[in-house]
Amino acid sequence: MLKLFYSPGSCAIASHIALEESGAQYETVRVDFRANEQRKPDYLAINPKGRVPALVTERGILTETPAILAFVAQSFPKARLAPVDDAFAFGRIQAFNSYLCSTVHVAHAHRIRGYRWVDADDAPAIAAMQKKVPQSVGECFELIEREMLVGPWVMGDSYTICDPYLFTLASWLEGDGVDPARFAKVRDHRERMADRPAVKAALAQERS
Amino acid sequence: MLKLFYSPGSCAIASHIALEESGAQYETVRVDFRANEQRKPDYLAINPKGRVPALVTERGILTETPAILAFVAQSFPKARLAPVDDAFAFGRIQAFNSYLCSTVHVAHAHRIRGYRWVDADDAPAIAAMQKKVPQSVGECFELIEREMLVGPWVMGDSYTICDPYLFTLASWLEGDGVDPARFAKVRDHRERMADRPAVKAALAQERS
Repeated sequence: MLKLFYSPGSCAIASHIALEESGAQYETVRVDFRANEQRKPDYLAINPKGRVPALVTERGILTETPAILAFVAQSFPKARLAPVDDAFAFGRIQAFNSYLCSTVHVAHAHRIRGYRWVDADDAPAIAAMQKKVPQSVGECFELIEREMLVGPWVMGDSYTICDPYLFTLASWLEGDGVDPARFAKVRDHRERMADRPAVKAALAQERS
Repeated sequence: MLKLFYSPGSCAIASHIALEESGAQYETVRVDFRANEQRKPDYLAINPKGRVPALVTERGILTETPAILAFVAQSFPKARLAPVDDAFAFGRIQAFNSYLCSTVHVAHAHRIRGYRWVDADDAPAIAAMQKKVPQSVGECFELIEREMLVGPWVMGDSYTICDPYLFTLASWLEGDGVDPARFAKVRDHRERMADRPAVKAALAQERS
């Protein structure tokens, strides 16, 4: 059975929602970041990067949200989570998810994980990063609102693996000091996502 | 015909090499970053993100290196650049490329594009970011060397869309203050890549 390693509140919820939507049989395993479990040998044997999500499959382990989302879509075609046989349509989905992981999530991470890119004890540099987050994350969501989110779902009428991922990052807006009221389509998308049974189920399981 | 927008020395060379390997008919268009062309209306109409690469196809425009690489592999199956019909094997490829775009390229970018994450006129914070690049990029390549690069190609015996992407980021090591001598497999991979006719052709075209 598929096994998803996650940490509550992390981007792993995107993969969790996709699994729930897919109809897959799966279980979840919580990694306790407060106890630094992601840096202990047991977890590093699962994911040497010391991060979540990680998905254990019968053939091996996959990491990185865009890869896990595409794997779920391709493995459970009846759920129609991505047009995996249409190179261009699939490419658009991958471009969107790649932007989320390489630009939007990275902008967000400068608020609480600035030590990745400057010395951890350089308080002014850490603070300088935190200060810019509302602007850098805000600019990402301006672009998503104006150019990328077709509506009602990210790719238009079809719900895809872009939707749980956008929902995840959009749920961090308030924490990043960005007012969601600026982005009508993103806010509408977030509310529509929150109503889906799969999203409710995944969130309830994380919080239990 | 496919049209790739690139800037010399950027990560767009990965997509360029993949196109050259694929047998596709394509042309390239240079975007002059020194003249700030990527921020001008003509180019923003191609890619509102103001970055390269962007690939114009007959159905629309694709951006983001992992998405373009997968599109090329899927569109030109005879070149066998990725096992696109095997969800797990394809997932491993996507996980590798996703790590390169969201972690390795991002670590590198703190050397010359720190203004994305702190105020551009905050010289001490910009310098603090630059100072950490040899360590953060070095740690990424330690992980690639130890855990990810199977050899002789990234995924083992088969050359895939991971290889031009790794080659691209590995070519920045010296500039990032990281000694490639630390990474025997990465260095060997870089040399083997440099010998491929497709790589020579793409590089020669960029430099012409």
